[in-house]
Amino acid sequence: MAGRRSVTLITDFGTTGPYVGAMKGALLRVNPDINIIDITHDIRRGDILEAAFVLHCAFSTFPEGSIHVVVVDPTVGSERKPLLVSTENHYFIGPDNGVFSYIFARDDIYSVVEITEDHFFHKPTSATFHGRDIFAPVAAWLSKIGDTSRFGPVVESYRRMEIPVPNEVKAKAWRGTVLYVDRFGNLITNFTEKQIPLDERGYPAVSRVLTIRGEIKKFCRYFSESTDQEPFLIFGSSGYYEIAVNGGSAAEALGLQPGGEVGIIVR
Amino acid sequence: MAGRRSVTLITDFGTTGPYVGAMKGALLRVNPDINIIDITHDIRRGDILEAAFVLHCAFSTFPEGSIHVVVVDPTVGSERKPLLVSTENHYFIGPDNGVFSYIFARDDIYSVVEITEDHFFHKPTSATFHGRDIFAPVAAWLSKIGDTSRFGPVVESYRRMEIPVPNEVKAKAWRGTVLYVDRFGNLITNFTEKQIPLDERGYPAVSRVLTIRGEIKKFCRYFSESTDQEPFLIFGSSGYYEIAVNGGSAAEALGLQPGGEVGIIVR
Amino acid sequence: MAGRRSVTLITDFGTTGPYVGAMKGALLRVNPDINIIDITHDIRRGDILEAAFVLHCAFSTFPEGSIHVVVVDPTVGSERKPLLVSTENHYFIGPDNGVFSYIFARDDIYSVVEITEDHFFHKPTSATFHGRDIFAPVAAWLSKIGDTSRFGPVVESYRRMEIPVPNEVKAKAWRGTVLYVDRFGNLITNFTEKQIPLDERGYPAVSRVLTIRGEIKKFCRYFSESTDQEPFLIFGSSGYYEIAVNGGSAAEALGLQPGGEVGIIVR
Repeated sequence: MAGRRSVTLITDFGTTGPYVGAMKGALLRVNPDINIIDITHDIRRGDILEAAFVLHCAFSTFPEGSIHVVVVDPTVGSERKPLLVSTENHYFIGPDNGVFSYIFARDDIYSVVEITEDHFFHKPTSATFHGRDIFAPVAAWLSKIGDTSRFGPVVESYRRMEIPVPNEVKAKAWRGTVLYVDRFGNLITNFTEKQIPLDERGYPAVSRVLTIRGEIKKFCRYFSESTDQEPFLIFGSSGYYEIAVNGGSAAEALGLQPGGEVGIIVR
Repeated sequence: MAGRRSVTLITDFGTTGPYVGAMKGALLRVNPDINIIDITHDIRRGDILEAAFVLHCAFSTFPEGSIHVVVVDPTVGSERKPLLVSTENHYFIGPDNGVFSYIFARDDIYSVVEITEDHFFHKPTSATFHGRDIFAPVAAWLSKIGDTSRFGPVVESYRRMEIPVPNEVKAKAWRGTVLYVDRFGNLITNFTEKQIPLDERGYPAVSRVLTIRGEIKKFCRYFSESTDQEPFLIFGSSGYYEIAVNGGSAAEALGLQPGGEVGIIVR
Repeated sequence: MAGRRSVTLITDFGTTGPYVGAMKGALLRVNPDINIIDITHDIRRGDILEAAFVLHCAFSTFPEGSIHVVVVDPTVGSERKPLLVSTENHYFIGPDNGVFSYIFARDDIYSVVEITEDHFFHKPTSATFHGRDIFAPVAAWLSKIGDTSRFGPVVESYRRMEIPVPNEVKAKAWRGTVLYVDRFGNLITNFTEKQIPLDERGYPAVSRVLTIRGEIKKFCRYFSESTDQEPFLIFGSSGYYEIAVNGGSAAEALGLQPGGEVGIIVR
């Protein structure tokens, strides 16, 4: 690979204390010639589903060979395994708690390795901070070695949360759910172009959108098309349809959270 | 230029979601040998004036050849143009919405290019996330190519907000405004050494400072000179006079916000 | 040293304004071939003790030769000295206000230099932003030069806050204090393995833990062992015993803050 290798970080450590810094030090001590990239450290504490979604939306723009470390790990120190996952172009390192569920739903998984080779670990290895003591040094060693088989055996069994997909309840009528609410209050649903095509002008080819708080009657191609507080449906940058309010929060306006239901009738 | 090129980022994306990470991935995919530097991702949502001021205060310490990407872009997807601005020592990339107004007020502008060459863009190019799909790849390609003419035609017309300058209402009596309130509640005014010299001891050569909530009677050279809650005038690190309260918020104490008026009578 | 040198940053500037960016620019202008690593910019405004503790917990994982810059500097502009501290493997740069107190308690201090050689400073040198004008350029020049004697004279006198250590009030009965409360509300005490051994199963060898709000009766090896809201004692990743609530805040549950007392009777 040309250039320096990227190691990305997703954690729920927050940015006020020493924890993120200690992890970065543990990476650089093994390999100072990497690009450490913060995706976010502000995952809600222990929210595995949120971390899984943020990883899913952020990783694929990175160069081939990038290593993505996810430390949202409420059961650190228990028997849950540390994993190293390889796909065609990316590596993923983190706890076996479902945080890689979106990755496992892809069709380019090469291998899932249980990290057991503890000579790569920081010593002494704490029971409470595997981000610093296991995941960071393993990521940095992988960036030097490149061979995943050095870190432990391939495993066939690992934790996978079911990613909800829309359900066609009758012809052209779909029931989907909210996957994620972003900082702006945009509701990212699980509808994609598989269920809802864009029409020739780039607008959702939809006749009705229904939520628990009533119908969405506005459809946009970009945010500032809407100049009032009415919620609208838009095809978002992550490949999912979103419900948004320009300059406001659709989550608040509609009282919806991840897991909330959305019905869509396609034109 | 010696060493790796810096690409700085100013956005209103916040640091909780996948958006900043996706932009950084799009940069590194084109050129992994850059220094990506976060200036801030916490610009108030859509606040072009705040982004313009933060850029103005932060960029000039960076090395020659640095590329500054600003994505505070409430009208993304509309007809607003993407711009690439060159000055003597720096490049600026972002939407044509006024965010470069302080830059345009400088006297070292070389060229303003409308970014039109879409073979540099991420494909498919979304209507809602030009930070990832246009600005990041263009910045990374510029860091490799260095030739701005490759990205589109020079334009003569672009958006420029008026930067307020103090007004001499009568001899030695000036009316100015607050440009920015920082995290500490310091009020950064538009008064500079052009209007108010520093005296031989480093203090503002001022006889009176007037605000809507009364007169400022204290003048300091550094913050901890003041040991009480009284607001004072100080020459700040960005080249502007500031009104501050040591250990407190001058914005709260005086009820002033960006745009608020300040009168100063020079000695 | 192999690879690029790390320069870490701890400040109380927050991440919303131009200040952190301006400091990073000042670093890269002198040496673009460093790894700039944010430890945190969210130290409570002017909280020297918090900054000292975060530095203490984060720095030691970094590679040999790393340079740690701490700018929590409420008396910037006064007569307080700028310092450059060398230990066996690390350098520390910041104000002489006690922020290096944990470092000074180590036994591997090589030298403490007062930074006086102002030809390394950013010009003009402001009275209010030594992070940008003194500490950043000095750190970047040090990363190139490596010789601390170039920056000023060795000094024997500098500010050192007393780091509280547990006190054995009678045989096996210790009185300690809370050093730090992390983002999760975990109370990090000053008890270490010197006072409290771990038993053969990895649990604290303690018979009683007493706080002002009553006794802690639960002892854990890792966090998710505890499945209720009862506070417990655990040996933490920074080498200190912590009082925690899994999924909650021990600080809130017990009404304890830094400086609060904890009594422990060892088995």
